[in-house]
Amino acid sequence: MKSQLSIVKIGGNVIENQEELNTLLALFSQLPSPKILVHGGGKSATEISARLGIEAQMVNGRRITDAKGLEVVVMVYAGLLNKNLVAGLQALGCNAIGLSGADANAITAYKRPVKEIDYGFAGDVSAVDGEVIGKLLKSGLSPVFCALTHDGMGQMLNTNADTIAAEVGIGMSQEYDVTLYYCFEKKGVLSNVEDDSSVIKHIDQENYPQLVEEKVIANGMLPKLHNCFHALEHGVQTVCIGNLGMLKPNAELFTTVTL
Amino acid sequence: MKSQLSIVKIGGNVIENQEELNTLLALFSQLPSPKILVHGGGKSATEISARLGIEAQMVNGRRITDAKGLEVVVMVYAGLLNKNLVAGLQALGCNAIGLSGADANAITAYKRPVKEIDYGFAGDVSAVDGEVIGKLLKSGLSPVFCALTHDGMGQMLNTNADTIAAEVGIGMSQEYDVTLYYCFEKKGVLSNVEDDSSVIKHIDQENYPQLVEEKVIANGMLPKLHNCFHALEHGVQTVCIGNLGMLKPNAELFTTVTL
Repeated sequence: MKSQLSIVKIGGNVIENQEELNTLLALFSQLPSPKILVHGGGKSATEISARLGIEAQMVNGRRITDAKGLEVVVMVYAGLLNKNLVAGLQALGCNAIGLSGADANAITAYKRPVKEIDYGFAGDVSAVDGEVIGKLLKSGLSPVFCALTHDGMGQMLNTNADTIAAEVGIGMSQEYDVTLYYCFEKKGVLSNVEDDSSVIKHIDQENYPQLVEEKVIANGMLPKLHNCFHALEHGVQTVCIGNLGMLKPNAELFTTVTL
Repeated sequence: MKSQLSIVKIGGNVIENQEELNTLLALFSQLPSPKILVHGGGKSATEISARLGIEAQMVNGRRITDAKGLEVVVMVYAGLLNKNLVAGLQALGCNAIGLSGADANAITAYKRPVKEIDYGFAGDVSAVDGEVIGKLLKSGLSPVFCALTHDGMGQMLNTNADTIAAEVGIGMSQEYDVTLYYCFEKKGVLSNVEDDSSVIKHIDQENYPQLVEEKVIANGMLPKLHNCFHALEHGVQTVCIGNLGMLKPNAELFTTVTL
């Protein structure tokens, strides 16, 4: 039987709010090991870019990572946010180790090809080294990944944190039974966006097409769910979607996604 | 017989000069493993502080790390400089893993007590976890340490890179024969500061007191040598002082310090 592995993905906003950060640190440090944390960027990068006089480049509402923008996200994601999390987890006895994809060559990516839009230094994951991550886990360490990868040729790349969590989950699924926790502000996928308690407890291949057809799952939830099924189809056992409360030992209300 | 371990310490200025950086990456990646790189801060932190409108706090000519200054050094040291090195080494096939002292709880420190001067978030090393660093080395990884530690209670601390190199060397010396390479701009400790070729080839406990008395070793070299003897007295085998050229397989001119 495979060991259980928990992978928790949080938005950068959790780190930027002291109360939320404390909740996360307490809950993550109490989760049974082995475990991995993946964090997004939050607003710090935008704020620090502005203070440095670097204007965010946007095309069709999407942020473009140019060379100067990349410097800022490397500083903020791999420096400020990552070390804040690692030091906070260490204080609670969780032996965290902060990583970008370049560290230990854990996650390689290729620069997104220029088609209609040049996304700049944005990377799409090409490989996850499950063996080296496994060695860290077996050394008693809890990796904390920021949303950065590298191309193996010296270039750091900005990569979506949801994708990193999914790809790391897939990479570890040969050796572990992986549960992926996607934390966001809601208690789960809602059947009625106006009603926070209308959490859909379970989504699978059977009810998913109907939920999409009825537009219960729409807009921002569509790529999130697409990402979940991608992970599940490639080896991840279970995906959970909800707020930080779902990391509690007796959490009740959140969405579970399985094949 | 113990295995050999090389620990190379460079100033942050090496990373900020593309030509020097390329030389370092080529030489370090060709050094036999196991090996560890330790890097200082350089001018980037000062420059980025200025651009963020954070004034450097100086007391008696020494920089004070206040809360805002600490945020900047965490961003620059653990983010920008560290990942630049790691991605560069990965491109040359060296499996680097970037670390602060908080990562894997590798280096703990205590905040320097306030006596006449409050140095702010400056940390003096209290413990190095040689076992966890050894596990990384045995996994085929080359740790790249930035000049940051933590207090184990959630606080990151700014720590001198020379000290980190010495303390990591001491921490690893039970298991390894450690050679510590202190890289700086000169070819070694000079007997005549005006003559770059006047490298003193060997310093030990016998000729050291005389060199100090004759003021051949003075000013900035005094704390450097003090640091070397501290490392040697606590288990490090050999300390080498010189420029990057001393990392070449057939390097000739540099200073070797032993007991």
